[in-house]
Amino acid sequence: MAEASRTSEARRDAVFGRWVVFSPARSRRPTDLKSHAPANPSSGAGAPKPSCPFCQGRESECAPEIFRVPAPPDASPWRIRVIENLYPALRRDAEPPEEAGEGEGEAAPGERAVVGFGFHDVVIETPRHDVRLWDLDAAGVGDVVLAYARRVQQLMEHPAVKYVQVFKNHGASAGASMAHSHSQMLGTPFVPPSVTTRLNCMKEVFKRLGKCSLCEFQSKDILVSETHNFSAIVPFAASYPFEIWIIPRQHSSYFHEIDKDMALDLGSLLRTMLAKLSKQLNDPPFNFMIHTAPFGVSSSCLPYTHWFLQIVPQLSVIGGFEIGSGCYINPVFPEDAAKILRELDC
Amino acid sequence: MAEASRTSEARRDAVFGRWVVFSPARSRRPTDLKSHAPANPSSGAGAPKPSCPFCQGRESECAPEIFRVPAPPDASPWRIRVIENLYPALRRDAEPPEEAGEGEGEAAPGERAVVGFGFHDVVIETPRHDVRLWDLDAAGVGDVVLAYARRVQQLMEHPAVKYVQVFKNHGASAGASMAHSHSQMLGTPFVPPSVTTRLNCMKEVFKRLGKCSLCEFQSKDILVSETHNFSAIVPFAASYPFEIWIIPRQHSSYFHEIDKDMALDLGSLLRTMLAKLSKQLNDPPFNFMIHTAPFGVSSSCLPYTHWFLQIVPQLSVIGGFEIGSGCYINPVFPEDAAKILRELDC
Ligand SMILES: Nc1ncnc2c1ncn2[C@@H]1O[C@H](COP(=O)(O)OP(=O)(O)O[C@H]2O[C@H](CO)[C@@H](O)[C@H](O)[C@H]2O)[C@@H](O)[C@H]1O
Ligand SMILES: Nc1ncnc2c1ncn2[C@@H]1O[C@H](COP(=O)(O)OP(=O)(O)O[C@H]2O[C@H](CO)[C@@H](O)[C@H](O)[C@H]2O)[C@@H](O)[C@H]1O
Repeated sequence: MAEASRTSEARRDAVFGRWVVFSPARSRRPTDLKSHAPANPSSGAGAPKPSCPFCQGRESECAPEIFRVPAPPDASPWRIRVIENLYPALRRDAEPPEEAGEGEGEAAPGERAVVGFGFHDVVIETPRHDVRLWDLDAAGVGDVVLAYARRVQQLMEHPAVKYVQVFKNHGASAGASMAHSHSQMLGTPFVPPSVTTRLNCMKEVFKRLGKCSLCEFQSKDILVSETHNFSAIVPFAASYPFEIWIIPRQHSSYFHEIDKDMALDLGSLLRTMLAKLSKQLNDPPFNFMIHTAPFGVSSSCLPYTHWFLQIVPQLSVIGGFEIGSGCYINPVFPEDAAKILRELDC
Repeated sequence: MAEASRTSEARRDAVFGRWVVFSPARSRRPTDLKSHAPANPSSGAGAPKPSCPFCQGRESECAPEIFRVPAPPDASPWRIRVIENLYPALRRDAEPPEEAGEGEGEAAPGERAVVGFGFHDVVIETPRHDVRLWDLDAAGVGDVVLAYARRVQQLMEHPAVKYVQVFKNHGASAGASMAHSHSQMLGTPFVPPSVTTRLNCMKEVFKRLGKCSLCEFQSKDILVSETHNFSAIVPFAASYPFEIWIIPRQHSSYFHEIDKDMALDLGSLLRTMLAKLSKQLNDPPFNFMIHTAPFGVSSSCLPYTHWFLQIVPQLSVIGGFEIGSGCYINPVFPEDAAKILRELDC
């Protein structure tokens, strides 16, 4: 590919403030250790599995249901179920932490411990074991998006929940333990570190330039596709090769305020992007994450917080440099990835 | 294990300001996808490999040597070689970026691009393909530590280098592409994001409590081992199961100021910790990273920056929650991991 002749470049993104090193030459290095990523990471999906608790007919093997789509009294079979996670990282029955202070359980200055209160839910995206999210039609993916939004709205009502992280793992190398198409959401009693970093970075850009980091794109080079409400881009300083961000074109701070029309539009674009990644990269393992504003931020934050959905194909393993420095090495320039994805028919 | 009956807890560490969720129950969840981590990640190592450029006798297949140990005129065979990386992420022959401003190559407000200048070196820790770092004796590991320090001192002389990240990848699932025992170092023209976060967090603790986050441990529960100069602990809010930090007991900001005696002492403790992890976890893939202060920080930062070495066994894959939120889920409480490692004979 042409990019192999380009020289390295370091770029800092305007959302997380991360530096990323773009180095096409790195992709030519040899290896005497086998790659750990299976060619087809979702093998295991496909064939219906008699023991899968997420399949239609095995609902009783799951943790309690929170709601389903379509909702009763509609008696037709469910298309989406939102259920409790049977092995929750945070527990809804724990005592919510008090607003207050530092110091509880400190082992050294500045450390802090709180009881593991929170909500950990699973969204079963389809009753069928052999259907992947992008096998649904646009309206089907839109309904999944609406189910996320509805559950976030419910969790928002709980005074101790500060943030809800919506995410999807697909394929073992992306962390998935279950093959049946699903996503998850964790409502946390604290604002997670990346969210704080993101808000601080976007605030700093806004203060300096008077602009939201995500409202403007000067460059058409990184655009993959556009709909009425959303742009899909490979971000200028993408941490991962072929990473995609889907961003509302109108400034909007909270994902959960999405309406039905927008959800359908997002469903359509998300579907296309997942299909493109699957086609171009041979059904890679991937994660997606929704980045939104924490609940109850002051209104002065709203002008610079702008929600988006990040899709990350997992093509290589991160090493000590990334873990230590927080800086990523990406062998594929975003313009090149965007061009490939843009020109791909899906 | 006893910890499976404990309930979840969330802890925030005082160095990176990260929240970590401890959830022993999570380790019981089922999976219908195979784990991607091979049982023995370093398979490939062991048998000398005729084509390995890091082996004795194949020096001419490597990128240029920077220095070796022992240094000429000592004519005995080399024990350590520091060489240029043949596929560097950052290039020493690129034009160093100017100190100045923002705006170069921006695609949207606040983004920034600079040419990919920097240094990317490899430390070959032994001439033998079948020797792992912890197979060396304490003095041998100490010499590797001194080689790191010496190269960092050299890179520090370059005015455009702001930070040097020293790191080691062992095993394919920890990112290693080469099996022959080695580590790497990247000198960057910017201060990496995790370093900025760490300094800000430690500064905030220092301002609030007047104490360095790493000078005091109240709790003996997390201690694994101690030498005259160093403590090895499983940190109170460890992001990864069985993560270990080796911390100088005397406050010290810069790793590269380590002297010969301290390096020998560190070599001995690092050797023991790697042997313990290998024994307890069946030769797991791992990374280690040295966290130090950026070059030329103002003297007001020195009271709260304290260097340390972080060892991270790679036992599970991170998923969308961690990538999105920056918050980790760890199924093993640090006190439990520390007790196991402390009691292990190595
Ligand atoms: N019968 C049942 N009823 C209800 N829920 C059930 C169930 N059986 C299983 N579950 C839950 O279903 C979820 C499936 O989730 P994923 O496959 O996306 O990854 P998982 O959460 O296991 O871990 C990945 O994602 C997390 C979060 O990113 C990482 O911490 C981790 O390392 C990575 O492997 C699990 O959380 C499991 O607890
Ligand atoms: N003949 C030769 N002479 C000199 N150098 C040679 C050489 N042959 C190979 N090399 C270099 O040796 C290094 C070996 O490094 P590792 O095995 O630790 O992981 P690597 O850097 O490949 O990538 C891992 O670490 C990086 C940084 O953390 C991650 O970006 C990445 O995803 C992960 O796989 C490579 O960087 C390679 O370029």
